[in-house]
Amino acid sequence: MNPGSVLDLLLQANRLKRVPRAGWVMRGLVDAESVSDHTFGVAFVALVLAQMTEPSVDVAKLLTIALLHDLAESVLGDVPSPALSYFPSAAKETAEAEVLGEMLNELPQFEHWRGWWREFERGSSIEGKLARDADRLDMLIQAYVYEQTTGNRWLDEFWACAHKMVFESEAARLVFEVLSEARDRSRGPA
Amino acid sequence: MNPGSVLDLLLQANRLKRVPRAGWVMRGLVDAESVSDHTFGVAFVALVLAQMTEPSVDVAKLLTIALLHDLAESVLGDVPSPALSYFPSAAKETAEAEVLGEMLNELPQFEHWRGWWREFERGSSIEGKLARDADRLDMLIQAYVYEQTTGNRWLDEFWACAHKMVFESEAARLVFEVLSEARDRSRGPA
Amino acid sequence: MNPGSVLDLLLQANRLKRVPRAGWVMRGLVDAESVSDHTFGVAFVALVLAQMTEPSVDVAKLLTIALLHDLAESVLGDVPSPALSYFPSAAKETAEAEVLGEMLNELPQFEHWRGWWREFERGSSIEGKLARDADRLDMLIQAYVYEQTTGNRWLDEFWACAHKMVFESEAARLVFEVLSEARDRSRGPA
Amino acid sequence: MNPGSVLDLLLQANRLKRVPRAGWVMRGLVDAESVSDHTFGVAFVALVLAQMTEPSVDVAKLLTIALLHDLAESVLGDVPSPALSYFPSAAKETAEAEVLGEMLNELPQFEHWRGWWREFERGSSIEGKLARDADRLDMLIQAYVYEQTTGNRWLDEFWACAHKMVFESEAARLVFEVLSEARDRSRGPA
Amino acid sequence: MNPGSVLDLLLQANRLKRVPRAGWVMRGLVDAESVSDHTFGVAFVALVLAQMTEPSVDVAKLLTIALLHDLAESVLGDVPSPALSYFPSAAKETAEAEVLGEMLNELPQFEHWRGWWREFERGSSIEGKLARDADRLDMLIQAYVYEQTTGNRWLDEFWACAHKMVFESEAARLVFEVLSEARDRSRGPA
Amino acid sequence: MNPGSVLDLLLQANRLKRVPRAGWVMRGLVDAESVSDHTFGVAFVALVLAQMTEPSVDVAKLLTIALLHDLAESVLGDVPSPALSYFPSAAKETAEAEVLGEMLNELPQFEHWRGWWREFERGSSIEGKLARDADRLDMLIQAYVYEQTTGNRWLDEFWACAHKMVFESEAARLVFEVLSEARDRSRGPA
Repeated sequence: MNPGSVLDLLLQANRLKRVPRAGWVMRGLVDAESVSDHTFGVAFVALVLAQMTEPSVDVAKLLTIALLHDLAESVLGDVPSPALSYFPSAAKETAEAEVLGEMLNELPQFEHWRGWWREFERGSSIEGKLARDADRLDMLIQAYVYEQTTGNRWLDEFWACAHKMVFESEAARLVFEVLSEARDRSRGPA
Repeated sequence: MNPGSVLDLLLQANRLKRVPRAGWVMRGLVDAESVSDHTFGVAFVALVLAQMTEPSVDVAKLLTIALLHDLAESVLGDVPSPALSYFPSAAKETAEAEVLGEMLNELPQFEHWRGWWREFERGSSIEGKLARDADRLDMLIQAYVYEQTTGNRWLDEFWACAHKMVFESEAARLVFEVLSEARDRSRGPA
Repeated sequence: MNPGSVLDLLLQANRLKRVPRAGWVMRGLVDAESVSDHTFGVAFVALVLAQMTEPSVDVAKLLTIALLHDLAESVLGDVPSPALSYFPSAAKETAEAEVLGEMLNELPQFEHWRGWWREFERGSSIEGKLARDADRLDMLIQAYVYEQTTGNRWLDEFWACAHKMVFESEAARLVFEVLSEARDRSRGPA
Repeated sequence: MNPGSVLDLLLQANRLKRVPRAGWVMRGLVDAESVSDHTFGVAFVALVLAQMTEPSVDVAKLLTIALLHDLAESVLGDVPSPALSYFPSAAKETAEAEVLGEMLNELPQFEHWRGWWREFERGSSIEGKLARDADRLDMLIQAYVYEQTTGNRWLDEFWACAHKMVFESEAARLVFEVLSEARDRSRGPA
Repeated sequence: MNPGSVLDLLLQANRLKRVPRAGWVMRGLVDAESVSDHTFGVAFVALVLAQMTEPSVDVAKLLTIALLHDLAESVLGDVPSPALSYFPSAAKETAEAEVLGEMLNELPQFEHWRGWWREFERGSSIEGKLARDADRLDMLIQAYVYEQTTGNRWLDEFWACAHKMVFESEAARLVFEVLSEARDRSRGPA
Repeated sequence: MNPGSVLDLLLQANRLKRVPRAGWVMRGLVDAESVSDHTFGVAFVALVLAQMTEPSVDVAKLLTIALLHDLAESVLGDVPSPALSYFPSAAKETAEAEVLGEMLNELPQFEHWRGWWREFERGSSIEGKLARDADRLDMLIQAYVYEQTTGNRWLDEFWACAHKMVFESEAARLVFEVLSEARDRSRGPA
């Protein structure tokens, strides 16, 4: 890959710093986190979860998955989740796979990365599962932070949804429980 | 339509005030206009263009089209245009039609409005054409304003694109020419 | 009206996208809606109310009123309402009328529009009344959305004021009642 | 003045932190300085100018004038200057005087302060003149900073206007000249 | 001091308009006040407190202290207070003194100002004490305003801290009590 | 490490999403990237550089370094670089090491991580060097993006500084050259 193409790739990825997360925007949160803020969060949560997880995890693979998992949003934007039901069922995954291919296919590890990204989409490996847990946990931590810092009352559905989530790692489940208790405490008696 | 459903509709439409226009966000414009800012612009431009247009225009229809043309973005968000090539070809129009149906189908005029919205999508009536001209003209006026107020250099492609546009009304074409000259003047000699 | 003057008018109207609504700013709301966000809201609410209203309404006139009703704020800014008591009594209406005249008097329909705008100011026609209802209803919906999304406690006076308002159309009154109930529910038992 | 009234006054003055300066907002500057940012600037510039000025200046009076000169905007908002020609000629000064009276008249020094504020409005004392110079100089420094940091091209009229201003102190005039040269240099050859 | 150096000083001080107060940023407040917003607040609170204080206060000195007290943050930024325990004990005061010296030492009054700034740091004169009270009171008023306008729940520690503060003037203590009661009332019964 | 402590760590790291990068803020950039935006950038650039680098790199170590390198700023804030010369020479590194210790020392890999972080600070391993290159390259890419999107003229010193930087990897040097050429082209003939 020549340096000009590498720069194009880096400039494209840089766009994630400017794409706000749609779920927050739609619920009236001002100055919502960017997709890259979230990506940092997922990577950091994943790194910490990996420390708590047996058997041992391939950290290089785990963090690569975290960094790539929303990269296609630099082209596609962050489509709000209620929108997805109005598109053909696999449309988003297909579009993301195509974008990732165009951005990364000149890199030597591309075939590995594409496989890893699929493991994330499907939760079909230990690293894919941990990254999914980290994706959800970062979202819930952020929802909690927004509730504490803004008084926004439209985030309930994140929690309703969370209580139906199955975290795939024991570590993530335990942290979620503590988070959930902290939230309940801050809301006082029913 | 009962008052509760009307309120739900109005709250849904209110979301347009919070959805930033993706084309500006992707190009690094801070605090970009909302979809409802743009919708106001389209309606106002259309109203003025109608004053300059023979034969006479159905203003009620024209302004209704302007108000509805991006309403589905209150659910779907504003998908950046480069993203569209990664989705099946009619996916966006299909999704928008479905969202509009769910939002508006209890209103007595819904069938008319759906027809008018299609005339906009296809440019198949005098009002549909004028609204399309207004949609483009408001976008170009906004691009000009951003260039003047921010020094952003990534808006060139809006103009490259504009020069290939065919405005359907003489009035819009004339205003575009004056705008284009104002932009050239402000950029100095080549 | 020559194209250069039309462009000047459109650029002037474009300023509404940048003028924040003073009532929200003064109460500490961050990134408050623009006057054009609000104008969109008024036009859309009016369009929906017209659907629910007997006898039939001149929709072209109604939406034109909505689009023009705050247009003078593109020059005057949005003066906070407590400020008005410190100016001579008709000063604001006089200033607005003069600004509208300067902006629009070359348009063929100007005399009609000026008359319509007065009907709005005085609530002296069915369309003027509906637009006034829409103006208030959009403001109250926005106040509700801000309460839900920010936890701001300084919006009470909007409601105290609302309960003294007389909505002129049955449709607006019914929607207001539902809105008011939704607000009460979200605030829990006294 | 009882502590409750003092708190009311301080909360009212606190609003200046939220009122954006209208001249910048109207010209498309994002996140424009607040009136209190500007007030700080005026006070600091005045303090420095006083150091450079013979004969000696009453610094307590000078800084009090700076702190009070825009205080009425906490109620009236910042009316954009082109708006003033649409209001009766003394309307703004009358309104400001009335607001200041209501906010401050229980303070023991109120009569002095009111006199000083008039000296500012009319430039009728050495301190009033210096504060006026500081008011203009802070505005021009801010215009320069915005030009350097945003590429906004709509600030020219501030400079056109500045070149017609008569600074009343030699110190302000000298600083303005250096500022004006710095601006010319940064814009390159004509 | 030549005009070029004066301009450099004013441009440096102008940076305070862009430095957000770290305590608010860290707690998730969006669009937090600038250091110059706060400086205005401190100066205005000090001016009002001086009116309520016997024996008489040197207002020129008091307001000069207010304007200078955070000026070094134009170079150093606003270091969050929990950070201070990780730096050597006098590091911040030493750094601030050095920055102030570099910014101001050509001004004729510099030696006086440095002495006054030390009186603020140590609370060792009536004006130094009043400015410290004003610094705290403006911070607490701002915390109250943020609680009222955002629903942020992470500001409690400002109040826990406040209840341990010893205000040095009776006037400040009385205003704080009223503020504290207003806050308690708005939070309802425990 | 118990789940409660893990949550505390994750909430602390989450603060990076709210800390703006001081270098941009000081130069008047509005809505500047957060430290976590930058951290994402560094990690992604590092991942891509690693693909272009012989001999092979420990990607797990490299990405862990990237994620940790600014983590202490969640407590310390982002101190602007000109400020550092006013603090004792090793003060910042000492403070960061202490903060990292308090945040991470219960994690099983802490001793490794501390060593890796030192390798970054000193550029004393292949991964430490690559992360430093990525840190600089992400900063320069961001400076370029800001120049293109805002017209800010105060970023020159980043480039003056860059031309003195020694990139430690051939890959980073090549990308920097292409970036530098792109910047020169966009600025036109001298």
